[in-house]
Amino acid sequence: MISPILYNCPPSGNCYKVRLFCSLAKIPLDIIDVDLAVGAHKAPPFTAFNPWQQVPVLQDGQTVIWDSQAILVYLAEKYGRTEWWPAEPTARARVVEWLSVSVNEIQHGPADARLVKKFDYPLRYDDALAASTRTLSVINQHLACHVWLAGEQRPTLADCAAYPYLALAPEGGISLDAFPALRQWLSRVEALPGYISVNT
Amino acid sequence: MISPILYNCPPSGNCYKVRLFCSLAKIPLDIIDVDLAVGAHKAPPFTAFNPWQQVPVLQDGQTVIWDSQAILVYLAEKYGRTEWWPAEPTARARVVEWLSVSVNEIQHGPADARLVKKFDYPLRYDDALAASTRTLSVINQHLACHVWLAGEQRPTLADCAAYPYLALAPEGGISLDAFPALRQWLSRVEALPGYISVNT
Repeated sequence: MISPILYNCPPSGNCYKVRLFCSLAKIPLDIIDVDLAVGAHKAPPFTAFNPWQQVPVLQDGQTVIWDSQAILVYLAEKYGRTEWWPAEPTARARVVEWLSVSVNEIQHGPADARLVKKFDYPLRYDDALAASTRTLSVINQHLACHVWLAGEQRPTLADCAAYPYLALAPEGGISLDAFPALRQWLSRVEALPGYISVNT
Repeated sequence: MISPILYNCPPSGNCYKVRLFCSLAKIPLDIIDVDLAVGAHKAPPFTAFNPWQQVPVLQDGQTVIWDSQAILVYLAEKYGRTEWWPAEPTARARVVEWLSVSVNEIQHGPADARLVKKFDYPLRYDDALAASTRTLSVINQHLACHVWLAGEQRPTLADCAAYPYLALAPEGGISLDAFPALRQWLSRVEALPGYISVNT
């Protein structure tokens, strides 16, 4: 079987979600870096891949998937990694809850703050900082009572989707000192077999 | 079988996503309105239901699910509505793409604009307006080539998740005049058997 291709940008947390999951779940992946600096994501053929003109994009034969959460679900389904994407309705909905948090509260909190501090994006830093404080507080409270984001037994796609921008929050000028349960969860993710850092 | 209970706020587009899907897919639903005006969503027992202190929340026996996208997935799985949540990996990933857009670009565009105009939320209207213009343009372009958001054959959870805040965009001061393909898709949703408006 030919490996799926990830159109990737190395420092992107959304691309890192996919690389991390594939490494943890032992899914083969070929990587093609897209040069955002020259606008390769805003020109053909890439614009035909993703109407939002963003990485990551996954190409698997004739199939093209955009959105990092959709890519995680696609790969888990295609490669039968049901331990990461449980089939039971309640367990699966738990994962989707955190896929939504990853796209909304985490994206518009610590991920946006990092875009400003590390990449000079023209976003409102104070808004991202305020959103981050609330987001990190809620997640820290949740992780004070739970081993993994979407269950007690083992990590799921929820952890893969949420980890990157939470781990990278300090690059957005956000300290994790006040969130010990969150930091312990980061360490649990980092101790998983197959874990890779964003720079791998 | 006892019907699941939706903790609901009538004008909330996120609650409407669930009511709309259940009506379209003939899933039984009991509704309990939560009085946001007196802060019922920020007090026990509701705070135990949802760490983010928001509606909607679904209670189904001992199971409690928050996040409107997770509720849609849960109900589709629980009631076997696979025509709305296709099992084939590519088709399913197409749905997840638009669940993410519903939580991110649609929420932080037309939904935020409506929160400001209709409910006086302290969000930045100009930012929501600018985000809406881009979001509606991309979705309009997509719908110029596709019958439904996640496929040609029939509507899915993608349409149920995206429809409410797109249809309600004018309540946020956003005209849909420049987006004819999007308006035609709204009409297609509204012609579906079982369709209900937000005021139903």
